[in-house]
Amino acid sequence: MSSRKQFRDLRPPSEAHEAIESLDLTPEPETVPLDEARGRVLADRIDAELDVPGFDRASVDGYAVRARDTFGADEADPVVLETVGTVHAGAEPDVAVAEGTCAEISTGAVMPDGADAVVMVERTDETGDGVAIRTSVAPGDAVMVAGTDVAAGSRALGPGTPLTAREIGLLSALGVDAVPVRGKPTVGIVSTGDELVRPGEALNSAAGQIYDVNSYTIAAGVEEAGGEAVLYPHAGDDYDEMARLLVEAAEECDLVLSSGSTSASAVDVIYRVIEERGDLLLHGVSVKPGKPMLIGRLGDSAYVGLPGYPVSALTIFRTFVAPAVRSAAGLPASGTATVDGQMAVQERYSEGRTRLMPVGLVEDAAGDTLVYPVDKGSGATTSLVEADGVVEVDADTEYLAAGEAVTVQLFSPDVRAPTLLGVGEDDPALSRLLDGVERPRYLDVGSREGRRRLRDGVPDVAVVSGPTDREVDAVDLGGWTREWGLVVPAGNPEGIDGLADLVDCDLRVVNRARDSGLRASFDAELDALAAERGLDRRDLTDAVDGYDLTVKGIESPARKVLAGAVDAGIGLRATAERLDCGFVPLGVESVRVLANPDRTGKPGVAALRAVLDARLDDVTASLAGVDS
Amino acid sequence: MSSRKQFRDLRPPSEAHEAIESLDLTPEPETVPLDEARGRVLADRIDAELDVPGFDRASVDGYAVRARDTFGADEADPVVLETVGTVHAGAEPDVAVAEGTCAEISTGAVMPDGADAVVMVERTDETGDGVAIRTSVAPGDAVMVAGTDVAAGSRALGPGTPLTAREIGLLSALGVDAVPVRGKPTVGIVSTGDELVRPGEALNSAAGQIYDVNSYTIAAGVEEAGGEAVLYPHAGDDYDEMARLLVEAAEECDLVLSSGSTSASAVDVIYRVIEERGDLLLHGVSVKPGKPMLIGRLGDSAYVGLPGYPVSALTIFRTFVAPAVRSAAGLPASGTATVDGQMAVQERYSEGRTRLMPVGLVEDAAGDTLVYPVDKGSGATTSLVEADGVVEVDADTEYLAAGEAVTVQLFSPDVRAPTLLGVGEDDPALSRLLDGVERPRYLDVGSREGRRRLRDGVPDVAVVSGPTDREVDAVDLGGWTREWGLVVPAGNPEGIDGLADLVDCDLRVVNRARDSGLRASFDAELDALAAERGLDRRDLTDAVDGYDLTVKGIESPARKVLAGAVDAGIGLRATAERLDCGFVPLGVESVRVLANPDRTGKPGVAALRAVLDARLDDVTASLAGVDS
Repeated sequence: MSSRKQFRDLRPPSEAHEAIESLDLTPEPETVPLDEARGRVLADRIDAELDVPGFDRASVDGYAVRARDTFGADEADPVVLETVGTVHAGAEPDVAVAEGTCAEISTGAVMPDGADAVVMVERTDETGDGVAIRTSVAPGDAVMVAGTDVAAGSRALGPGTPLTAREIGLLSALGVDAVPVRGKPTVGIVSTGDELVRPGEALNSAAGQIYDVNSYTIAAGVEEAGGEAVLYPHAGDDYDEMARLLVEAAEECDLVLSSGSTSASAVDVIYRVIEERGDLLLHGVSVKPGKPMLIGRLGDSAYVGLPGYPVSALTIFRTFVAPAVRSAAGLPASGTATVDGQMAVQERYSEGRTRLMPVGLVEDAAGDTLVYPVDKGSGATTSLVEADGVVEVDADTEYLAAGEAVTVQLFSPDVRAPTLLGVGEDDPALSRLLDGVERPRYLDVGSREGRRRLRDGVPDVAVVSGPTDREVDAVDLGGWTREWGLVVPAGNPEGIDGLADLVDCDLRVVNRARDSGLRASFDAELDALAAERGLDRRDLTDAVDGYDLTVKGIESPARKVLAGAVDAGIGLRATAERLDCGFVPLGVESVRVLANPDRTGKPGVAALRAVLDARLDDVTASLAGVDS
Repeated sequence: MSSRKQFRDLRPPSEAHEAIESLDLTPEPETVPLDEARGRVLADRIDAELDVPGFDRASVDGYAVRARDTFGADEADPVVLETVGTVHAGAEPDVAVAEGTCAEISTGAVMPDGADAVVMVERTDETGDGVAIRTSVAPGDAVMVAGTDVAAGSRALGPGTPLTAREIGLLSALGVDAVPVRGKPTVGIVSTGDELVRPGEALNSAAGQIYDVNSYTIAAGVEEAGGEAVLYPHAGDDYDEMARLLVEAAEECDLVLSSGSTSASAVDVIYRVIEERGDLLLHGVSVKPGKPMLIGRLGDSAYVGLPGYPVSALTIFRTFVAPAVRSAAGLPASGTATVDGQMAVQERYSEGRTRLMPVGLVEDAAGDTLVYPVDKGSGATTSLVEADGVVEVDADTEYLAAGEAVTVQLFSPDVRAPTLLGVGEDDPALSRLLDGVERPRYLDVGSREGRRRLRDGVPDVAVVSGPTDREVDAVDLGGWTREWGLVVPAGNPEGIDGLADLVDCDLRVVNRARDSGLRASFDAELDALAAERGLDRRDLTDAVDGYDLTVKGIESPARKVLAGAVDAGIGLRATAERLDCGFVPLGVESVRVLANPDRTGKPGVAALRAVLDARLDDVTASLAGVDS
C-alpha cells in the first residue's frame, strides 16, 4: 500500500477548466432528417433557396381585382365587376383578370394574371351579373408578394442555432428535410471496481457487491448535456484489462470518463494507463470533493477521471465536464442550469481549497429559493437525491451567512426545488400520504433531528413521534397514531411476552436509531420499568442484548428478525403484518406533522394538510394498526 | 361562400382552458429500461427493496479492527495488532478479526466478522510482526452500516418524480433496471389544405403550393411538451377524406390536432366532422390570434383545431395545448418556460378580446430582458423565428407602457434571447460576418426602417447604407463598401450602358423595396441625372418601367432577371457574380454598422465589433466587390 499514488501537487480549479477546454471533444457534424432535428444545433448557415411564399398570394378570402378598377368605390356607391372565375388555394389559376373583371379567390391562392389586389369578401356582395365591390383598394392590398416572408438567397438561420419548434417551422417553410447539425459528442464511460454490478443483475452483498451508480448517473448527465453516452464493461484493477478497455473507448469516443471506483489501487492503475499510453495533463485538483481528478488525452480522445463517490462524481462532472460536453455539442452556455437563492442557514468552512458544496433547495412561502448544505458524506446515494446542485465556495471564503446570496449550479436542467421539504420520523403511513403531494422531498432523519432542523427553519414540516424534552414552535397540521412494539419471528417462537423479557431473558434484539421517535418511546417504557423496579434505566439497557445495535429504516429491525440475526426488533405492527412477522405490542404513539410557522401558506404545505385531512381516517385505520 | 361558418359566440380564454382540461389526454403508464428513463416521469412510488449498502462497509482504506483493542493508542504509544489477512472490495472476507488482530481492508470492502471499526491507513505503520495502530477508534468509526444510505422498505422516490441524472443514480443503487413511467401522450397532427407539400418534396409554386410548416412546428412543440407526435397525411377539403383521417388519428392517439389550413372551407369541413362524429365542446375563442379554435372529443380522443397561420398555430398551441400535454405527460407545470422582462417600447391595443401578443426578446447591456412586439402579419414564417414567445394581454388592457413588467410564455423551453439583435440593410457580406457571432438575430428590414428602430431603442445595432436625410444617434462600429448597379442577363444582351438607358430605352426593370439603402442610392443617382437634364426625379421614375416594382431580398431582382421576367434589376456586383449574371456598375456605397449607444458594452455587440475588426479587409475584398 505504500506505493499508492499521492496527490501532492493539487492544481487550482481554473487550471482544470483550462485543461479540459484544451481538449477537443467536438465531433464531426452530421445530417439528420427534419423530424429528428429538434434539440440539435445547426452546423451550417442555412440560406433560403427559394422565396416564401413562392408566388404572389392572396391574404384573405375575397375577389382578385385590378386595383384601379375599384377607385372611388365605397359602401354607398359600389363598383360592379364581372366574375370571370375562381382561384382555389393549391391550384394554378386558369383565369386572368382583365379590366372590369375579377376572380373569386381563397386565402393562400395564387394571384391570377392581371390582378394586383384582393378585396375581402366582407366588403362585397354578389349581384345578378357579378360582384359589387364596396371599397376601393390600392395595388398590393391583401396580397403577399413572392418572397415577402423569406426572400431566396437571404440568410435564414445561422450556424450554432439551437433548433426549437420555431426553427423547425422555418426550415420546413424552406422545404429543408435534411438538416446539417453539430454532432453529439460521444462519451465513453468506463466504470472501475470489481465490486460493481449492473442494475437488474443479482447482487451478492456478502461478497461486498454493490450496484453501479456512477455509470448510469453520469450517462444521464452526458445526455442532459447534449452528448451521447456509451457504457463500457466494468474493469477491475488489472492493468492490461483496464488499458484495453480505456484504449477501446478512446478509439470509439470523443471523450472517455472513468468512474466508479473508490479504491486507491484502481485509481492508481488508471493513472498509470493514462500516463503510459496517453498524455496526462493534470492530476489532482484543489477542490473538495474531487481531489483525485485526472485530465488527459488517450489517442485522439480526451480523458477525464472522476471521483468514485456518486455525489462527488456528479459534482465534478457538473462543474468541469458538462460545460465542455455542452460546448462540444454546440449548445449555448446560457442553457447551463443555474438558480439564484440565498443561504437558509449559515455555513462555516475553512480547508483552504475550493469547495463544491452540494446543496438542497427549498422555497419559502413567497416562492423565493433557499439553499442549504447537504451534509451527508459524499458516499451516500440518497444525498444524490437530496442535493439539487452545487454552490462553488472560494478557497478563502470561511463563512457563508444565513441570507447570503448564492448561485446554485443545478445537477440537471430539469431539477426543481421540491414543492414540500419534510424531515423527521420514518413511517409507512406517511410514505403513502406523501404520494398525494406533487414532488415532495422527505428525509427520514428521525424525530429528534427533525425537530432540530425545524428549529433551524430549513424544512417546511417535521414529522415527529415519541416523547421529547424540547418542543419546537410549530403549527400542528394533524397526525395519526401507530402501534409499536417488538417484531418477532412468525409464531413468536421465543414466547416473548413484553418488555421485561428483553431485560430478563437471553434475547438478542435490535433497536432503532438514536434520533428515532420509536426509540424515545422504547426508552420511556424502559424508564417506567426501571422506576417500577427501583432501578436506573441504564441498569436495564445494559441488560438488553442489542440495545445499542441500531439500524437505519423503520423496517430494518424486522428484516434483521426475518434474516434470523436477532430474536426481536423494535418496530410497528404495520411492518410486522406487512412482512408476515409476529408482533408483541408495547404501546401506541402519536405521530404529528408539524409545520414551520413561516411556511403554512406554501402550496406544498397546504397540499399535505389537505391530504392529511382527507385521508386520515382511512390511513389511520388501515395502516397505523389501530383497531377501529 | 355565404354558407361559411361564422364564429359569433366567442368564449373567453378561461373556458378554452377549462374545456381542454376536461379532456383526458393521459396515456397508460409503461415500463422502460433504466437507460431510457431519463426525462421521463415516475408512474409509481419506488420503495427500496434492499439496503444500500447491503453490508457493513469500510469507508476508508486501512485496517479493520475491534475498537476496544485500540483504546488508549496514540501517536506516541501505538498498539500493535497482528494482521490476519486482507479484504478487498467486491470480495467475501475470508478472515475473522479476533482480539489482538486486524485485517487490511480497502474502501468499499465488507467488514470481516469480529471487526467493528476501521483505522485509516494514514494512522498506521507496518511493523515486522504486524501493524502499529497510532490512534484509538470507537465502534462504528469509518464503517458505513448496511442500509445507512437507503434502508430496505423505505420510500425512495415518489410517483410524479421527473427522472434526472440523480434519480437515475438512486434507481441504479437500488438495482432497478426497469422503471415504471408515465406514458407519453400521443398527439396526432392532421394538416389540412390541398396546397401543402411535405419538405423535401418538389414544390409547384405556380400552382400555389407551399411547404407544410405547421405540422413540423407543432410536432416539435408536442415533443418539447413531453408528448409523442404522429404526423398524418394531408387532408384536402373533402368531407369523407377528412372524416376518415380524423377518426383514424383519434383511434390511434390521445389527442388529435388539426392545423395548416387558412382556408375557411377546410375549417368548415373539420367543424362538421367533429360536430357530427364527435362532441364539439367549444367553437371560437375570444383571443387574438386564434379566434377560430375548436375543442372537442372524437371517439376516445381529445381534439383541438388550431389556426392556420404558423405563428398563430404555435401561439395557440403554446397557450392552450402544451400545458395540457405537459400535464398528461406528468411533467411539472413549473417547467413551463417563461421569462420575465419589461416592455422595450409602448404598445397600444384595444380590440376587446384577449391578445396573445407575439414578442421578441432582447437583452440590455445589464443582461435584463426587454420585450418588443413582433408586428408582422401572423401569416409570416419569419416572424416565427423573430418571435420568442407570447405575452398575454387582458381584453381590457389598452396600453402597455415602455418599461412595464410582462411575463413571456416562451415558445420552447430552450428559447433564449439572441446575443445580438440587428436590423437594417440586407447584405451578403453581413450575412457571413454574422456567422462569427454566436446566436445573432438579424432582421433585414432595410436601412430606413433599421434607422427608425434604432431610434426607438429596441435593436442593438442597425446596418445601414445609402443616403439618408435623418441620421440616428449611434456608435459607428465599422463598415465596408459594396459596388452596386444593374444586374442583367449574362453577356448583357440588351447592351445596357448605364442609368440613362433605363430612362431612355424600352427596358423592364425591378427595383428594391422602399426602405432599402440600395434604393436610396438608386434614387440619388436618378436625382443627379434629373438635375443634369433639368428635370424632376419624378419625370425620370415615370419613364423607368418597373421603378415601382419592388421585391424583398437583395438577390430577388437578380433572380427576376434570371427568370427572364425583367431586363435588369437593382443589385450588387457580388450577387451578379454569385448568380453568374452580367453587371453594369452604377456606384459604390458604404455600409455602416451602427450600435445603440446604450448597448456597446453588451457581449454580442462586442463580438460583432471584433468580427468586423478582424475580417473586414478580407470580407471587403472578397465579397463587397471592391477591386483591390
